Amino acid sequence: MNFGVCYYPEHWPEERWPLDAKMMREAGINVVRIGEFSWSKLERRAGEYSFEWLDKSLSILAAEGIRVVLGTPTATPPKWIMDRHPDIYMQDNKGVVRGFGHRRHYCYNNPNYHVHVQSIVTAMAERYAHHENVIAWQIDNEFGCTDTTRCYCSNCRTAFQQWLESKYGDIDNLNEQWGTVFWSQIYNAFTEIELPAYTVFPLHNPGMELDFRRFSSDSAVQFQKLQLNILHAVAPSQPVTHNMMGMFNEIDDFDLSKELDFASLDTYPNLMFADKPDPRDTALNLDVTRGFKQANFWVMEHQSGPPGGNILFPTPKPGELRKWTYQSVAHGADAILYFRWRTCLFGAEQFWHGLLPHDGNPGRRYEEAARTGEELQRLLPLIEGLSSQAEVAIIRSYENEWTMEIQPQTYEHRYSRQLMAYYKHFYDNRIPVDVVSDECDFEAYKLVVLPHYMMAKPGVSERLERYTAAGGTVVLDIRAGTKLWNNRMDDAPLPGAFRELLGIRITDYGTLRQGESRRITTRDEENAGSGTIWYDVINAEKAEPIAWYGEDYMAGTPAATRHSFGQGNAYYFGIGADPDGMRSLMGQVCKSADIRPITEVTAPDEVELARRSGSTQRFIFAINHAGEERTIELAAPMLELISDRMLEGTAVIPAYGVYVFTSLS
Amino acid sequence: MNFGVCYYPEHWPEERWPLDAKMMREAGINVVRIGEFSWSKLERRAGEYSFEWLDKSLSILAAEGIRVVLGTPTATPPKWIMDRHPDIYMQDNKGVVRGFGHRRHYCYNNPNYHVHVQSIVTAMAERYAHHENVIAWQIDNEFGCTDTTRCYCSNCRTAFQQWLESKYGDIDNLNEQWGTVFWSQIYNAFTEIELPAYTVFPLHNPGMELDFRRFSSDSAVQFQKLQLNILHAVAPSQPVTHNMMGMFNEIDDFDLSKELDFASLDTYPNLMFADKPDPRDTALNLDVTRGFKQANFWVMEHQSGPPGGNILFPTPKPGELRKWTYQSVAHGADAILYFRWRTCLFGAEQFWHGLLPHDGNPGRRYEEAARTGEELQRLLPLIEGLSSQAEVAIIRSYENEWTMEIQPQTYEHRYSRQLMAYYKHFYDNRIPVDVVSDECDFEAYKLVVLPHYMMAKPGVSERLERYTAAGGTVVLDIRAGTKLWNNRMDDAPLPGAFRELLGIRITDYGTLRQGESRRITTRDEENAGSGTIWYDVINAEKAEPIAWYGEDYMAGTPAATRHSFGQGNAYYFGIGADPDGMRSLMGQVCKSADIRPITEVTAPDEVELARRSGSTQRFIFAINHAGEERTIELAAPMLELISDRMLEGTAVIPAYGVYVFTSLS
Amino acid sequence: MNFGVCYYPEHWPEERWPLDAKMMREAGINVVRIGEFSWSKLERRAGEYSFEWLDKSLSILAAEGIRVVLGTPTATPPKWIMDRHPDIYMQDNKGVVRGFGHRRHYCYNNPNYHVHVQSIVTAMAERYAHHENVIAWQIDNEFGCTDTTRCYCSNCRTAFQQWLESKYGDIDNLNEQWGTVFWSQIYNAFTEIELPAYTVFPLHNPGMELDFRRFSSDSAVQFQKLQLNILHAVAPSQPVTHNMMGMFNEIDDFDLSKELDFASLDTYPNLMFADKPDPRDTALNLDVTRGFKQANFWVMEHQSGPPGGNILFPTPKPGELRKWTYQSVAHGADAILYFRWRTCLFGAEQFWHGLLPHDGNPGRRYEEAARTGEELQRLLPLIEGLSSQAEVAIIRSYENEWTMEIQPQTYEHRYSRQLMAYYKHFYDNRIPVDVVSDECDFEAYKLVVLPHYMMAKPGVSERLERYTAAGGTVVLDIRAGTKLWNNRMDDAPLPGAFRELLGIRITDYGTLRQGESRRITTRDEENAGSGTIWYDVINAEKAEPIAWYGEDYMAGTPAATRHSFGQGNAYYFGIGADPDGMRSLMGQVCKSADIRPITEVTAPDEVELARRSGSTQRFIFAINHAGEERTIELAAPMLELISDRMLEGTAVIPAYGVYVFTSLS
Repeated sequence: MNFGVCYYPEHWPEERWPLDAKMMREAGINVVRIGEFSWSKLERRAGEYSFEWLDKSLSILAAEGIRVVLGTPTATPPKWIMDRHPDIYMQDNKGVVRGFGHRRHYCYNNPNYHVHVQSIVTAMAERYAHHENVIAWQIDNEFGCTDTTRCYCSNCRTAFQQWLESKYGDIDNLNEQWGTVFWSQIYNAFTEIELPAYTVFPLHNPGMELDFRRFSSDSAVQFQKLQLNILHAVAPSQPVTHNMMGMFNEIDDFDLSKELDFASLDTYPNLMFADKPDPRDTALNLDVTRGFKQANFWVMEHQSGPPGGNILFPTPKPGELRKWTYQSVAHGADAILYFRWRTCLFGAEQFWHGLLPHDGNPGRRYEEAARTGEELQRLLPLIEGLSSQAEVAIIRSYENEWTMEIQPQTYEHRYSRQLMAYYKHFYDNRIPVDVVSDECDFEAYKLVVLPHYMMAKPGVSERLERYTAAGGTVVLDIRAGTKLWNNRMDDAPLPGAFRELLGIRITDYGTLRQGESRRITTRDEENAGSGTIWYDVINAEKAEPIAWYGEDYMAGTPAATRHSFGQGNAYYFGIGADPDGMRSLMGQVCKSADIRPITEVTAPDEVELARRSGSTQRFIFAINHAGEERTIELAAPMLELISDRMLEGTAVIPAYGVYVFTSLS
Repeated sequence: MNFGVCYYPEHWPEERWPLDAKMMREAGINVVRIGEFSWSKLERRAGEYSFEWLDKSLSILAAEGIRVVLGTPTATPPKWIMDRHPDIYMQDNKGVVRGFGHRRHYCYNNPNYHVHVQSIVTAMAERYAHHENVIAWQIDNEFGCTDTTRCYCSNCRTAFQQWLESKYGDIDNLNEQWGTVFWSQIYNAFTEIELPAYTVFPLHNPGMELDFRRFSSDSAVQFQKLQLNILHAVAPSQPVTHNMMGMFNEIDDFDLSKELDFASLDTYPNLMFADKPDPRDTALNLDVTRGFKQANFWVMEHQSGPPGGNILFPTPKPGELRKWTYQSVAHGADAILYFRWRTCLFGAEQFWHGLLPHDGNPGRRYEEAARTGEELQRLLPLIEGLSSQAEVAIIRSYENEWTMEIQPQTYEHRYSRQLMAYYKHFYDNRIPVDVVSDECDFEAYKLVVLPHYMMAKPGVSERLERYTAAGGTVVLDIRAGTKLWNNRMDDAPLPGAFRELLGIRITDYGTLRQGESRRITTRDEENAGSGTIWYDVINAEKAEPIAWYGEDYMAGTPAATRHSFGQGNAYYFGIGADPDGMRSLMGQVCKSADIRPITEVTAPDEVELARRSGSTQRFIFAINHAGEERTIELAAPMLELISDRMLEGTAVIPAYGVYVFTSLS
Repeated sequence: MNFGVCYYPEHWPEERWPLDAKMMREAGINVVRIGEFSWSKLERRAGEYSFEWLDKSLSILAAEGIRVVLGTPTATPPKWIMDRHPDIYMQDNKGVVRGFGHRRHYCYNNPNYHVHVQSIVTAMAERYAHHENVIAWQIDNEFGCTDTTRCYCSNCRTAFQQWLESKYGDIDNLNEQWGTVFWSQIYNAFTEIELPAYTVFPLHNPGMELDFRRFSSDSAVQFQKLQLNILHAVAPSQPVTHNMMGMFNEIDDFDLSKELDFASLDTYPNLMFADKPDPRDTALNLDVTRGFKQANFWVMEHQSGPPGGNILFPTPKPGELRKWTYQSVAHGADAILYFRWRTCLFGAEQFWHGLLPHDGNPGRRYEEAARTGEELQRLLPLIEGLSSQAEVAIIRSYENEWTMEIQPQTYEHRYSRQLMAYYKHFYDNRIPVDVVSDECDFEAYKLVVLPHYMMAKPGVSERLERYTAAGGTVVLDIRAGTKLWNNRMDDAPLPGAFRELLGIRITDYGTLRQGESRRITTRDEENAGSGTIWYDVINAEKAEPIAWYGEDYMAGTPAATRHSFGQGNAYYFGIGADPDGMRSLMGQVCKSADIRPITEVTAPDEVELARRSGSTQRFIFAINHAGEERTIELAAPMLELISDRMLEGTAVIPAYGVYVFTSLS
């Protein structure tokens, strides 16, 4: 089991290194990530490589049994490179150069940068390909962080034109797909096309906006591939990863993960100003990361103290690091690396705290991590590789997320809020879910939920029809099928491509402002929660209503429907449901689809239940996110693994406490 | 009677055009606006004109009896023009080019653009001057929309210098008028003058700021004139209009309308986030438009569904389109064109809904418009050309609006809010008003109200004195006469040029923040409402107080005064009145001026009353803006024209219902 | 005693000048500031000087016995200079030129500007060095106003590189001090260094950020010195000042004042939107200004009416000018000049009101100033030069203020709020304080309070230890000693350099959001107020707790401590105290340090008490900041100087009233 920290020996005097390594070992640490921001230390001047300090650090770590994930340093090109090639800097949408002083100050599409990247990555790969202590590579760092995906430089403009030409072939095909006849934007050549930059009013052609997002995401993927190809060629035995950021959405992480050997996540549960961070947000990031490759993953950076740039976020209270660590493991993390070992004395992150404080002496965070590591050394071997065996898939479609981001339609709404509404419902009802791409195997699930599947990707409606006909259950919702994949509106009656599957026709609709809602009713309840965000006026046609509007001019008409389709059912939610509405609607769905929650344990709200299951055994995690103790109930006696005790009946779980039960699968 | 839609045949396959025309005719539509964004379709490459598609569309429309208003397409220069002459783009106040991708991306003062404009407009005019189905022209589209009036390019800088030289002649005259001695800004030549652009702190010389606004408005008027001259020369039998936007204020629409043959308005009553849009806002836009040429007008774009760019505004409820249409007619619209026929499938306005949804099938909006059209075909012939016969004029002075915008003096205050406060008072009291320029014939009114007439235009005080002496009633208010027409402070005792007329002297004053107020009293009421925005401390001298301050250090001193001047009265309001204060003050004014409200009908608040009167007959509109039915009372039995019934006593008006009564004038 | 106004004869016709001078004299005015924005009038074209108008104005003033402070006009270079040398304009952090139209539109480091500055200042100095009516000079105007300290032009970049080279000598010394190894920012030469301008994310190296602030402050000081050297050389008998702005913090005003002959303040007590401006804010600005040279000072601009650019601030109520004037005197002003004489008719400040309104006739502000002047002519000779004899020093450290501004650590927190929390406590408790630099003589005070002394300046901890050992009392607080003077974190256990003095160790800490707090307890009170902003978890080691946390995981541990050190005491406040908490903690401190408040008068909250003391007499000011009368109590009978009455027992002080008592020292 990999348990470790992110470590920056270059920030500290060499005399300290042996003590660091010793203290790490004593805390159960067996792996560190290293090197990913050290370019100016590895190559202070063009071509003058200095690997000796890194070699030495690896040796010192090896002496304590600590292995290494090596990062390529391409997130921080040194000043001498920037001075040679100022065109490497990103530009903002007004053409202003985003200069030196932070990190990620480069454009993915810059050929001059590619040359330097190839050199340093090749040099590192050649030196460490066969180093027995180097067990994996991380490429760059947090692609897409701090608004660094979309660049408006002239290299990007040319690259975008070429990307478009390669996609559309003929300029009149692009004119047709984008609908450039609107407002006289017909192009006569690909070279006429600008990036969707600063203009009179921030409202560009939606087809162009979406393609620019696709192009920018592809640019990041291509940039990674440049390095991936070198690493796979030179160091074929060392797996390669990248540390992604869960719900960040500028880059399609399904694409980014495709050729990676495993996925990694950077998780900061309290990187916000909350007394009680919502553990469901963290859980979603974890499940999302597991979905990238539909496989377990590493936490490459795990919050270990108060993070902060110029502002500090809250200090984790005693017990929080440990329970966050268990939450990561419960959702599929097979490795945990805390960020960072020791809090840095200088630089932009001198307040981004690590396990050790600035003075380097062990304190309560170090002690808590050490205790957690000790526990995990016993537990993880049992569960490594096991998954949650979810019956429910939530489909995350980056391209629909981008479409909704470009045009939220309802003020301040976001695709992710809709996805989150479903996620929280399942979490609260102890139903494990996978968050996966629309390329996934629907048949692996009893229920497939597609939030805001506005643009119908070619083939998906047919695949959903086959899946449903064979007995599957599908949920689609507001705006589904209203657009084609090129971001044009479908000119078919709504819901467009999904009309056959859903058996309904939408004849009218309207937005609801934040705070506005429309009451809905069901057969059982006069007040079955509320619709928010949007309302569709539905002609049920071949479907059967499962909820109705309780007010406004469409009162009495269907708000949600079920269409019996072959052996299965296709549901449509014509509103964005509030939590009560979600309970009313999804309750009916789950019942008909026979979705089974975790039942081994019954727990109050703030105690999370999660599962990892193998072929013979099931591990149930009960994690108390409350700052006070809580009481849970066990359906049957079970072994609690951390304490190695059999528990039965009711059990008290302490503040921020964790139980890991085992039962037969 | 003209009843129609805005139509974009270029957005749809030709095969659809006959069906569109047929469905239009079936809905009573007899006119469409067409062509105003189609430049890249009319002239895809320099000089290569393609009018065939437009000819064909006109023929298909003609076959169904539908006539056409033709738009010049100059709001959207195609990309090939911009690539030839990148200097056409507007620049923002930091000199950043506002590039391609939206519309109105051109500078009014660009000579290269003028050449292209002349070519396309001449070509269109020559082709359609004698087309029997083309009944009018619209120039460009919504001048001044989305912050496109004030440009900071070098062409504008030079043009501004020339405009100033032609206005001031001598640089030392400008130095004197602007007061450039302040902060060492004395200029030695007109060529030294910059535009009032980005500087250390956004506080420029007020004389310069005002002149830049005047210059920018003039630039738009000149740009329109370029086209107007061509159209009037080549197509003298076809009237020309422009679609203006009511209370938008960057361009002086009195100037812009002067040479137009008729005025037009684009009206979107619910282009905001309101459950209940305030019908008084819409009424004001309508009355303002009628004031531009003191004549009835066209609604060239009338909301027909939820509008929206990336965000959708609320969907009109059943009945709202119809009652908004009647409101337009009640305030002087002699033609109604809905925007737009069918919702576009692509482009920046793919969510700006038309009568038809994306799928092109008729729905409730189409049905409601058709019903409304049918009714109007009977009604409009009776009332076309009739006006409201207002006794009250509210003066709208763009230059004073600009002055107050540059220097609101009171935080977040705007000239338009003061004008609106008067307007709403009259609306609520069923008193029809005209909103007209300070060049209007004061003698045509019993009462002339001049909100915030801060800068005294030369001649106006004398004209007001003559008007009042002859029996007229004038209301002036806070800040009136404190400035000269060049935006310098008057050095005479306040209220400057109006001191003789008002018979008072203002000795002190102060601002009131939003939410702050000072109670006022009148002879009849201890609590007669509140003053807001500002307070003047008034020495009544020759005038008689009509209200006093009830608190603060000026308690007991006059807050408003009446000066008997010749046969008439000149009132001064030394505070910005809240609605109660307005009732106390304007109640006294209207009584003394014998202003007569509409009395044929008595109605609750949400039922608007409006009037159009001819020499023999009066038409009273009662429009229920509430979503529930309301009861009104008739002073005498009257014929209701829509239902063709005689009504008397009390009558119930349904939710969003409309009655049109006729009585003898 | 100097009593006067700021006067701009160049704004008015010469015929008016004699009347102005006469009206001034009649109001008791004997000094005016003149000339500081008149460059384009003094030198309309390069080298063509016109001093005749200024000579004439001085003569007319002299004829009425009015003397002059002459301003150098370098805050407003005329347009012809800017056109010759456009590189003089400041640039913002994106490199955009901040163009013409306001004032202060120049870069301190521009050599072309230095040439013009030298010429005009030399010419003025030579002409007026021996003018008997010119009694002092003011250099430029309000350095640092409207964000004009930090410029991002290429001259500044070069100057910054030179400044750094001169400070660090060797580039690797800079690399070490700044910690550029973080994120690969190692520099190979000083010429590689950029200004901390626009980049991907606004988070630069903290060492660089602090040095850029130091460099920018130094640039302003150097720019002033350029003029100071000329004036001191050419006009050695005329003292030189600059009008500073109290708590403004871009320039280190201790440095700026060092070579000035006396300090001046511009004070606008109600330059905000407040019904009741907080008099403690104004008092602090006054005390801060007295601290610059630890000497009395001039008020060079004193609010005289509603100030305003495009927005007007509240009008002072009758009596407010007078009581603000007395407040200035009470805190050490030995001269008062109102800003400005007559309200200007034009220019950006046409709403920045002076004593006279636009029409030039005397009104209530003129009358009130005249009455105040008359009183002060009697009073000031008695108290000129006397100080407040404070026992408490609050240390203001610009460099720690900048550090906290760059990295507030707690959201929306500022150094000045912490300083203000102490100041308000002392003000409320009638304890006079000095606000002085960390270079001051600690031994002159019984108590030295160092708010947020985060970076430990070399030598200060040793000086504090000596001072405390000898019997002094010190208060340090949250973040003290956590950083070295180069803005790196100290790697010693906290509180770093102050650990020996304070006798504690801080083992953990966390931020508190605005509105968040932690209850504290003392030996006497279970509820002794609240900690805000931040909490330190303290191991008291050799110190004794004086307060404890009452809640959260650190409940029961010390929140504040006292360390008996030699003859004195060193206190540590581990939280940012709310007013109740401050009372609990500082109450204990003041008691142990034997701090004595003003006891001659007892007054309710809104009546300020202040003191100026000489060797034999004490003058106690009682200033009623309330708009209603208040009752005060006298410990013994005292002479009230304004009314020349003996008062004893209780006395009523009218709304905005002032009493000046005298007693033996």
